[in-house]
Amino acid sequence: LNSASSDLYHWERENLGYQAGVLTIAGQQAEVMAHSAGAPVFLYDAQRIRQNLERLQAVLAQAGLSHSIYYAMKANRFPPLLTYLRLLGRCGVDVCSPEELLSARQVGFAETEISYTGTSVSEEDLAVLQRHPGVIIHCDSLSSIRRLGRRCPGRRIGLRINPEMGLGYRMNRLLQYAGRKATKFGIYHGQFKAALHCARESDLLVEGIHFHTGCGYLTPQLPLWSQILEAGQRFVDECPDLRYLNLGGGLGIPLAEGDEPLDLSAWSAIISRQFGNSNLRICIEPGDYLVKDAGILVLQVNTVEEKGGTLFVGVNGGFNLHIEPAFYKLPLQVLPCRQPDSSLRRRVTIAGNINEACDLLAENILLPPVHEGDYLAFLNAGGYGSSMSSNHCLRGFFREYLLP
Amino acid sequence: LNSASSDLYHWERENLGYQAGVLTIAGQQAEVMAHSAGAPVFLYDAQRIRQNLERLQAVLAQAGLSHSIYYAMKANRFPPLLTYLRLLGRCGVDVCSPEELLSARQVGFAETEISYTGTSVSEEDLAVLQRHPGVIIHCDSLSSIRRLGRRCPGRRIGLRINPEMGLGYRMNRLLQYAGRKATKFGIYHGQFKAALHCARESDLLVEGIHFHTGCGYLTPQLPLWSQILEAGQRFVDECPDLRYLNLGGGLGIPLAEGDEPLDLSAWSAIISRQFGNSNLRICIEPGDYLVKDAGILVLQVNTVEEKGGTLFVGVNGGFNLHIEPAFYKLPLQVLPCRQPDSSLRRRVTIAGNINEACDLLAENILLPPVHEGDYLAFLNAGGYGSSMSSNHCLRGFFREYLLP
Repeated sequence: LNSASSDLYHWERENLGYQAGVLTIAGQQAEVMAHSAGAPVFLYDAQRIRQNLERLQAVLAQAGLSHSIYYAMKANRFPPLLTYLRLLGRCGVDVCSPEELLSARQVGFAETEISYTGTSVSEEDLAVLQRHPGVIIHCDSLSSIRRLGRRCPGRRIGLRINPEMGLGYRMNRLLQYAGRKATKFGIYHGQFKAALHCARESDLLVEGIHFHTGCGYLTPQLPLWSQILEAGQRFVDECPDLRYLNLGGGLGIPLAEGDEPLDLSAWSAIISRQFGNSNLRICIEPGDYLVKDAGILVLQVNTVEEKGGTLFVGVNGGFNLHIEPAFYKLPLQVLPCRQPDSSLRRRVTIAGNINEACDLLAENILLPPVHEGDYLAFLNAGGYGSSMSSNHCLRGFFREYLLP
Repeated sequence: LNSASSDLYHWERENLGYQAGVLTIAGQQAEVMAHSAGAPVFLYDAQRIRQNLERLQAVLAQAGLSHSIYYAMKANRFPPLLTYLRLLGRCGVDVCSPEELLSARQVGFAETEISYTGTSVSEEDLAVLQRHPGVIIHCDSLSSIRRLGRRCPGRRIGLRINPEMGLGYRMNRLLQYAGRKATKFGIYHGQFKAALHCARESDLLVEGIHFHTGCGYLTPQLPLWSQILEAGQRFVDECPDLRYLNLGGGLGIPLAEGDEPLDLSAWSAIISRQFGNSNLRICIEPGDYLVKDAGILVLQVNTVEEKGGTLFVGVNGGFNLHIEPAFYKLPLQVLPCRQPDSSLRRRVTIAGNINEACDLLAENILLPPVHEGDYLAFLNAGGYGSSMSSNHCLRGFFREYLLP
């Protein structure tokens, strides 16, 4: 699926590349969009989202798996993007809060197309779920089973379990959802019998098992993926009325040069080997995988200056717009919005406009010469960028565009 | 200034403590406030803010320093809190973005009571500064000097310098504003002559030197404070027309039991020793020091459950409401809103309602038994809590209250 490309333009693809020397995404010139907006912009390539979704569905179908995809809305909740996904009609949506649920409804998702996978679920959250009887609920604690049962006897539910193994982007500890250290997510095997008992007592029917164990995994992590599914088997075996398995999301994309894309066929073969004969519907909850590489963030350079031996490139946005480089140490690839006319590269650090030392969008990277007034594009900004943005220093303003 | 207290209640003070068994701040019961709001609440004790400000001013006055305080708005921009500070009439405000500047104006600060200390300053930022000719501007790059000069010839400015030494809360690398590693902030000594030259060429008059070098420093860091001021001296010596020195903020408060409060007299004595005979006005930019310990965050417990050997206490807010524990590893002290009736303590981890593994507000802390429905207070939440909050997972709703 990657187009043939030189090292320099390994990120190029249909709908993203230089046209007549200008970085163009989905037919729109990145710098023109940012200039028109007069603010930082996130640009989302709708066709890329569709391709990512179709690729995932194709590979699940090829593996002979009956399947459903629920887009994990927390990756990006821009209403036009949600609306586009709804109108495509090829996926449902996974939500994790009442407001996300209501947003999904607002763009047209039916209750039955929505799964709710929350944590630390409050009575207020449950009250909203109660008013949406068709929504699929994944309970991740005995407490939530008990309290849901009180409000919604007879309801079908899924149980989020914790297989005690996990995966994270670049092995980032912050992103590990399950593993040796106890996490807040899911029901551990030691309490699973109690959870099933509790569900029965609460007049809830367990028809699904859910396990989301990490994010950003690529081909090298697939052996662990296989072990996680094996670890899930013993939970499955204890549930006679099961109709579906939700394997969470977490499929990664290459973030840095040299990262290999996830081998989707190998990924689905592992699912097929473990659960292919189970007659269970396989549900997947991709967030980043659908939207991350479909989005770019475009910022304008306002300052180019050496300080203390480092060449800093100052831009009109900061870590409050895209938190991943500063706090998760995930790299954002940076490109000039105008194709460089020489192969000259300089080592620079991209500094945001927030008064915090950690406000660096990229450190010590090679970039063609950059001038004040230029625009820079940050690739792979479609997921967990705008959705986690803050208004820190009152620098939180940006615009988003869905490019059909 | 700390009241005599047992180990258990070392945080108690006038206006914050249990009254008839209920945690009370500024005369308001914390749990009643949270219950009425029906949402996470930040409660700010106005009198504490005033006391923090007066304490700082008293110690500067005692040291014989002519001084001005500029509250660093980025710590907390809740409009009622800003309004309160303006009406007190004892400080100005430091801003770092056009929107902060306009917010300061909106609550009544005069232009001359506002200093602007930005970084990666854009043309749009400068356009706003141009429309506010009375605002004091600290330029932190040659680029911004040059561009400001083009717009505002004749204007008086300060230069933000980088003394190449820094301080951070608990030695946190993320929070170090200057030090061995080059940071984006300020003008290094190697470029200082060029900066002065550039200011002259741009028809700008340098009347201030600014250096903000870190945050959260306490008494053990004072020797470094002394060295930083010494390092600043050589910049001062090169500026004949100087009228003021802005030493930034960064004064810390105790965050964990055992932290000693900053010895303010020792702090001001260091300033006095270095600059007491300089005839320069000493400006200070405290943010956290004024507001952090004046604020508490109150959340409701919805889940108490052991998972994988850890007792998790789930609450109705997450790291998106207060980012410091998850990303800066700064501890938030946790208290039950009802006074415990026994000395029993259990080891718990407080888990937020965001679907991310790092969403823990406190890990492995001792707490009296907690029940679902209880309210917990998180101390020292008055700074960099609400101001950095995000709407991640659409869980960003909270209410703030200024308690007079």
